[in-house]
Amino acid sequence: MANTKKKLKIHFNPDNIDITVPEGESLLRAAMSAGVHINAACGGNGVCGTCKVLIKKGGVESTRSEKLSPEEYEQGYRLACQSRVITDLVVDIPLESRLETAVLSREAQVVEDGGPKAAEAIATGWSFSPPLNKCYVELSSPTLKDNVSDLSRLLRGLKRRCNLRNVSVDFDIVRKLPPVLRKKDGRVTVTTLVKAVKTKADKRKPTIIEVEPGNTARKHYSLAFDIGTTTVCGQLLDLNRGRVIAEGMAYNGQISYGADVITRIAYSQQPGGLKKLQQAVVATINQIIAELFTQSQIGVEHVGHMIVAGNTVMTHILLGLDPKYIRLAPYTPVASFIPPAKAGSLGIRVGKHVYLFTFPSVASYVGGDIVSGIVGVGVHQRKTLTLYMDIGTNGEIVIGNSDWMVTAACSAGSAFEGGGIKHGMIAASGAIQDFTISPSSLEPELHTIGEEKPRGICGSGLINIIAGLLEAGVIGQNGKFNTDLATKRIRKGSDGYEYVLSWAHETEAGKDIVITEVDIDNLIRAKAAMYAGYQTLTKSVGISCCDTLEQVIIAGAFGSHIDIEKSITIGLLPDIPQDRFIFVGNGSLTGARLTSFSTDLLDDARKVALMMTNLELSERADFMNNYVAALFLPHTHGDEFPNVSKRLAKLQGSKLGRRLAI
Amino acid sequence: MANTKKKLKIHFNPDNIDITVPEGESLLRAAMSAGVHINAACGGNGVCGTCKVLIKKGGVESTRSEKLSPEEYEQGYRLACQSRVITDLVVDIPLESRLETAVLSREAQVVEDGGPKAAEAIATGWSFSPPLNKCYVELSSPTLKDNVSDLSRLLRGLKRRCNLRNVSVDFDIVRKLPPVLRKKDGRVTVTTLVKAVKTKADKRKPTIIEVEPGNTARKHYSLAFDIGTTTVCGQLLDLNRGRVIAEGMAYNGQISYGADVITRIAYSQQPGGLKKLQQAVVATINQIIAELFTQSQIGVEHVGHMIVAGNTVMTHILLGLDPKYIRLAPYTPVASFIPPAKAGSLGIRVGKHVYLFTFPSVASYVGGDIVSGIVGVGVHQRKTLTLYMDIGTNGEIVIGNSDWMVTAACSAGSAFEGGGIKHGMIAASGAIQDFTISPSSLEPELHTIGEEKPRGICGSGLINIIAGLLEAGVIGQNGKFNTDLATKRIRKGSDGYEYVLSWAHETEAGKDIVITEVDIDNLIRAKAAMYAGYQTLTKSVGISCCDTLEQVIIAGAFGSHIDIEKSITIGLLPDIPQDRFIFVGNGSLTGARLTSFSTDLLDDARKVALMMTNLELSERADFMNNYVAALFLPHTHGDEFPNVSKRLAKLQGSKLGRRLAI
Repeated sequence: MANTKKKLKIHFNPDNIDITVPEGESLLRAAMSAGVHINAACGGNGVCGTCKVLIKKGGVESTRSEKLSPEEYEQGYRLACQSRVITDLVVDIPLESRLETAVLSREAQVVEDGGPKAAEAIATGWSFSPPLNKCYVELSSPTLKDNVSDLSRLLRGLKRRCNLRNVSVDFDIVRKLPPVLRKKDGRVTVTTLVKAVKTKADKRKPTIIEVEPGNTARKHYSLAFDIGTTTVCGQLLDLNRGRVIAEGMAYNGQISYGADVITRIAYSQQPGGLKKLQQAVVATINQIIAELFTQSQIGVEHVGHMIVAGNTVMTHILLGLDPKYIRLAPYTPVASFIPPAKAGSLGIRVGKHVYLFTFPSVASYVGGDIVSGIVGVGVHQRKTLTLYMDIGTNGEIVIGNSDWMVTAACSAGSAFEGGGIKHGMIAASGAIQDFTISPSSLEPELHTIGEEKPRGICGSGLINIIAGLLEAGVIGQNGKFNTDLATKRIRKGSDGYEYVLSWAHETEAGKDIVITEVDIDNLIRAKAAMYAGYQTLTKSVGISCCDTLEQVIIAGAFGSHIDIEKSITIGLLPDIPQDRFIFVGNGSLTGARLTSFSTDLLDDARKVALMMTNLELSERADFMNNYVAALFLPHTHGDEFPNVSKRLAKLQGSKLGRRLAI
Repeated sequence: MANTKKKLKIHFNPDNIDITVPEGESLLRAAMSAGVHINAACGGNGVCGTCKVLIKKGGVESTRSEKLSPEEYEQGYRLACQSRVITDLVVDIPLESRLETAVLSREAQVVEDGGPKAAEAIATGWSFSPPLNKCYVELSSPTLKDNVSDLSRLLRGLKRRCNLRNVSVDFDIVRKLPPVLRKKDGRVTVTTLVKAVKTKADKRKPTIIEVEPGNTARKHYSLAFDIGTTTVCGQLLDLNRGRVIAEGMAYNGQISYGADVITRIAYSQQPGGLKKLQQAVVATINQIIAELFTQSQIGVEHVGHMIVAGNTVMTHILLGLDPKYIRLAPYTPVASFIPPAKAGSLGIRVGKHVYLFTFPSVASYVGGDIVSGIVGVGVHQRKTLTLYMDIGTNGEIVIGNSDWMVTAACSAGSAFEGGGIKHGMIAASGAIQDFTISPSSLEPELHTIGEEKPRGICGSGLINIIAGLLEAGVIGQNGKFNTDLATKRIRKGSDGYEYVLSWAHETEAGKDIVITEVDIDNLIRAKAAMYAGYQTLTKSVGISCCDTLEQVIIAGAFGSHIDIEKSITIGLLPDIPQDRFIFVGNGSLTGARLTSFSTDLLDDARKVALMMTNLELSERADFMNNYVAALFLPHTHGDEFPNVSKRLAKLQGSKLGRRLAI
């Protein structure tokens, strides 16, 4: 009966993509099937309002949502997730609902430019010796005097020519030996893999995972991936030369099932939900792999190894492990150290012999991405007391050095990604990023990503705006507007007082773009969570925050774009000399790459995960106290930010002076 | 178009089985599909004539074969392999073409009665400690202070409660942890497996292969199999009590593709041939497993381990390894030490977690069955100089002790299985087994298996008959008939001189059963190959055959039924005191069982396979000399068989005396 449903056509603009779907299909699902990326932060539950689309022709059956204004409804806007297709349609995806793949290249650019190279320079003490090895051997022909089995002959050759001992072999390899060994008269290339060992004394036992006829040793590649909740980044690595030869990024296909890990876990509990999420991220990975092969002109058969860094939830879903109990107290993952899986069995389009390694995690909210990052930048190799932080909705913090490490996750809310901000948006083209304000006229000067007409405010822009407003005295240290100032830009809006950043005629959407007191409050909460997080961590190990920190490493795509001085000004980063800060971009990807190059670092990942002590901040009373104290710009206790306090005092004094002079 | 072929019905007697097949199907294949066992020694090539069937109703399209006499053809006999079904049929399978499952029970009986128990008694120096272990643990519930991952909690529990360290885990297990750990509040039973280690110093690293909710430790079973070319034997073992709890045997389903390993290898080279042979033996294994479960009322889910002993070709085919190069000089197997495979992936109906271990082989024709047998009877544990032999078409010989071992395979031909003997048959009911002859009247006294009317002569019967005829002077030491004797039983037949064992009216088939000079010659060649084999082996290590042998262990179903004295008389077994001989029945199955009980013995199997030096007899000139010298009853050199020679001389003397007296 299902087959007799009417088929309906949908045309999506501006992507110019057509798809045919059965009558009654959800419009969001139709867009996903067509490869049209629609933002659906809440996972299609009609709650977030981000999947707004404009029905240009045809009609949908749809639930009225309070996320749509009466005008919008009148104009034909609907929430894609709440609409069912009942006629042929022409649908426009408005700018604000689109996930544009193009904007990712900006992040990739930055990663390429400075981040990882810096990181490779700061991670020391590892030797180039990939866990995947290719060895070419020429085996003697069997004779009646020497008619050992094909496998024994191969193992003997590996011992003699490649000095490989204690070699084991995957059962699947045994089957292919007879033709492979004979195809080029005993000339074969053997791929072996070693796993991490627990102690230096443990013998490394290589496993044969592939045997090819002839000499293919020159073609020796690996894949390193960072699976983020929002974006997935992959690199194709040349294991002979220790080089990145292609790089690709894409939005994680799971986005349409929800913006954050909690929504994804919830979705995974629906019937078939886990499978769908897994397939979504695997599709993304396959898309990137296809792109890497196209870029590099390298055949899939030459890739022998894959390593993935991801947070605990992303790792669970990729491997098909049920993340259910990560969300429920007491927040237990299925496994922290997960044995390698066959990549092909997960649906990843690489050779059947390729194992997929994942980084071990520390806790439900301190995942393999952080362990990978720490290994990638070598925190565990130095005595230097280091703060490593990945700022985001789920902010992760590590403090320590080669002797000890403590870690915590703090739920900062989504303000850094533009969430909960009236005109917030992700760091895409048109997002206001740079902001300066004239101390006298209080008029702003804005710069957007791509220098396009303003569309909204991204996270790093928000920090710059708030720091600027604070220094200009437009807002006070409590984040409230100084309503006495003589400027039209401060006004009372539907959400309380606001400052107009861009007038309607200047913007892409033709509407004023503002920042409200509610927005400022959201950012203060987010930065307070991060600050209280590392403050609590340092105190837990008996040292004082923050001047004892000898190095602050900021990882993550978001971190790469923030302004250090302004981040200190608002109290997000500690008030210490700027030369102690290092940006490393995608530290997780760096770690994944370096462990592809060095078996030592693969061992280190295990060691690092084990040496990290996780603090559940939500369980600590002092975290709450620190958090409340940090709900101020930069902080309730001025002596925590001595330089900022001094500067603010000076600025206030001069402004007061200037005003008095007027 | 294939579907439009006419469907035809066939009724098989006496099995009373019906099957419907498409027009044109081979009658042999139809019988195989119906589960009707037809002997087809040559693999369906129309060469051996063993698949004779009688068409009672209907007609077949069939090639005329010289294996059928004109009378048989007239009566409606056809070769099943050469016939295509063109009408509905009623087909009788005559006695001589049938493989009756019932006769297997005779062998099983013997194995149960004496063999393996004796073997267990002679294998010493092993402790009861199965490679498969079940451990029940009660895990504490996760709390916020102790929220390690499910896997970490499990590993911690195993360390604390079961003292298991260095545990690894199969990836598939990780996925099932969350529900299993919670189903009975942390009460779980963990199954771990250890593999063989190379040296005592190597740490054993257990792998978790299964986790079940609650306490299932009492249900802890394993399967041991001997995969013979002709028969497959399996035992269900209770790993808690070290006991066999059910046993089953069946003909190897590959029989219909050929009687011996060479024919099977040839078949495996046809398109899809290897797959068909593999499926055939897997079907046989599954049939036995089903029977074991029915007998024991034990659920398949409680079996956690499977170990298989088989010759090199049987092991290759079971695992889907191409046996092609075993048949071609220089006779190389794919692998001698084969990593464990998942039994389920081969189609064997056990739990997904069950690994199938195979015994390592020494060479293409000295397989895991021999290694298993040596381990099973503990040859490697004693200083006693032992000859271990498995007599059959492919006779395997091992000589050695705990310090050294040499081995060889000798191709004896199929006489021991009744092959190449005019009225030869396998050891089934009606086979002449015991034979005595009156020295005066030269009249025989016969006993058949099951005391039924004679149908033919089995291998052990053949030995007894020839020894009897020799001692009575009916044949000379050259195997030729003494045609001067006054008896109607010696006559000239179509194959030269023959002795009538049973007159037509006494037999099942209503035809005379005879033994011919050609038959005798065939047996002499077979026994000469075996004797020359162990004689060459002993000489190769610088000791003299055969009085230096302190123990002779005879393994195999055939060996269990031979008469030692008569076997010495014809020169098959060495002329040493009878108390040095031990019968162990199915030594391979014993070895498989014992290695299920003892990890030490699993290690030993590896050691034994490595310490065995294989001699290619076909490459040695002295083997040919020894063989030619042994083509006499008992041997050309009387001093090799001093006691037999003395007795024969005495008998000849007395007979001569008696005749002179008459």
